[in-house]
Amino acid sequence: MSKTLERRTKLRESLIEAAERRIAAGGLAGLKTRDLAQDIGVANGAVYNLVDDVDELILRVGSRTLARLDVALSSAESDGPPSPRDTLVRIAVAYCDFAADHHELWRALFEHRMAPGKPVPEWAVSDQMALFRHIYRPLAEMFPTRTPDELGVTARSLFSAVHGMVLLGLEHKLIAVPVEALRAEIAVIVRAMVEGLAASRRVD
Amino acid sequence: MSKTLERRTKLRESLIEAAERRIAAGGLAGLKTRDLAQDIGVANGAVYNLVDDVDELILRVGSRTLARLDVALSSAESDGPPSPRDTLVRIAVAYCDFAADHHELWRALFEHRMAPGKPVPEWAVSDQMALFRHIYRPLAEMFPTRTPDELGVTARSLFSAVHGMVLLGLEHKLIAVPVEALRAEIAVIVRAMVEGLAASRRVD
Repeated sequence: MSKTLERRTKLRESLIEAAERRIAAGGLAGLKTRDLAQDIGVANGAVYNLVDDVDELILRVGSRTLARLDVALSSAESDGPPSPRDTLVRIAVAYCDFAADHHELWRALFEHRMAPGKPVPEWAVSDQMALFRHIYRPLAEMFPTRTPDELGVTARSLFSAVHGMVLLGLEHKLIAVPVEALRAEIAVIVRAMVEGLAASRRVD
Repeated sequence: MSKTLERRTKLRESLIEAAERRIAAGGLAGLKTRDLAQDIGVANGAVYNLVDDVDELILRVGSRTLARLDVALSSAESDGPPSPRDTLVRIAVAYCDFAADHHELWRALFEHRMAPGKPVPEWAVSDQMALFRHIYRPLAEMFPTRTPDELGVTARSLFSAVHGMVLLGLEHKLIAVPVEALRAEIAVIVRAMVEGLAASRRVD
């Protein structure tokens, strides 16, 4: 790697880390490239030599958040009885804990909207979809005769349901719940969902 | 009612309706009191003779949205077999339909944040909490030995889970689902949850 390229790679990394610190402290709303340029000691315009635009920067921070979430979910997977039902409950509770512990970074994953008409880039979509394997695998074990498409639908429904409980539980919007109570509720509801799904005949 | 008071009451109603039309068309982000003043033919500053601030205006629009949602859920309640499990499934699907049909007004209910440090007024909280009776009543019928507090916890968990499925399903964020498929998924998952809850021993 040339000296110039090496310097650019390091600066780009610093920029992403600076954006991450700012989002973790104050959410997406207060993110300004001017502040970031100052954080890493470059001129305002130089930020755009390092990333295409703010959307890319936010998505790069998002990828780092998803990578951390991946570690947390992997650890929850192996941290208890290997039965798929227990695993799904542990993953859901770990998702709740992650959202509580990295609240602003987690919110940013869902609040960020691309500039109108601009699609989310392929690499960011893959990063997001890769995490579904944590839900998909136990479901595939529970329902060996279901097709990948059917399992995919159930995986995203379970995820969305848990996400909703975490979102409204932590946002204290309409509903205020202490985190400990929220974790317990999520465990009860996820267990009920997976037991109910296992007991039900196929609904077509 | 004096002529002046009558005129003020009518103007206030027009202002709330104008805000509702603007939110329904373009969401909360584009709402400007300047536009609203023009819509109802008053000077800019006169808006603040009619409501305390934009928070109040948005909450008044929210109450109208909640009143419509109340009608939709009441109609779903009586529109099919009276068993509590079927009723809970119908209510969840009706919530999905309502969100799809009144997308911006529904989003505004959850996206609105009060100015920092300002609590949501009591009347708005009551309007929101009143809707939980649609979930609470069938649950109370299913679980006659549970306390009101326990039922309240289950009601908000069910609501949050369904809300999450509707939110991520309709927002096409991470997860894109056609509304028909979403309705079907919600029915499957809610039925699984309530069957699972009914089958499970109490978890304390």
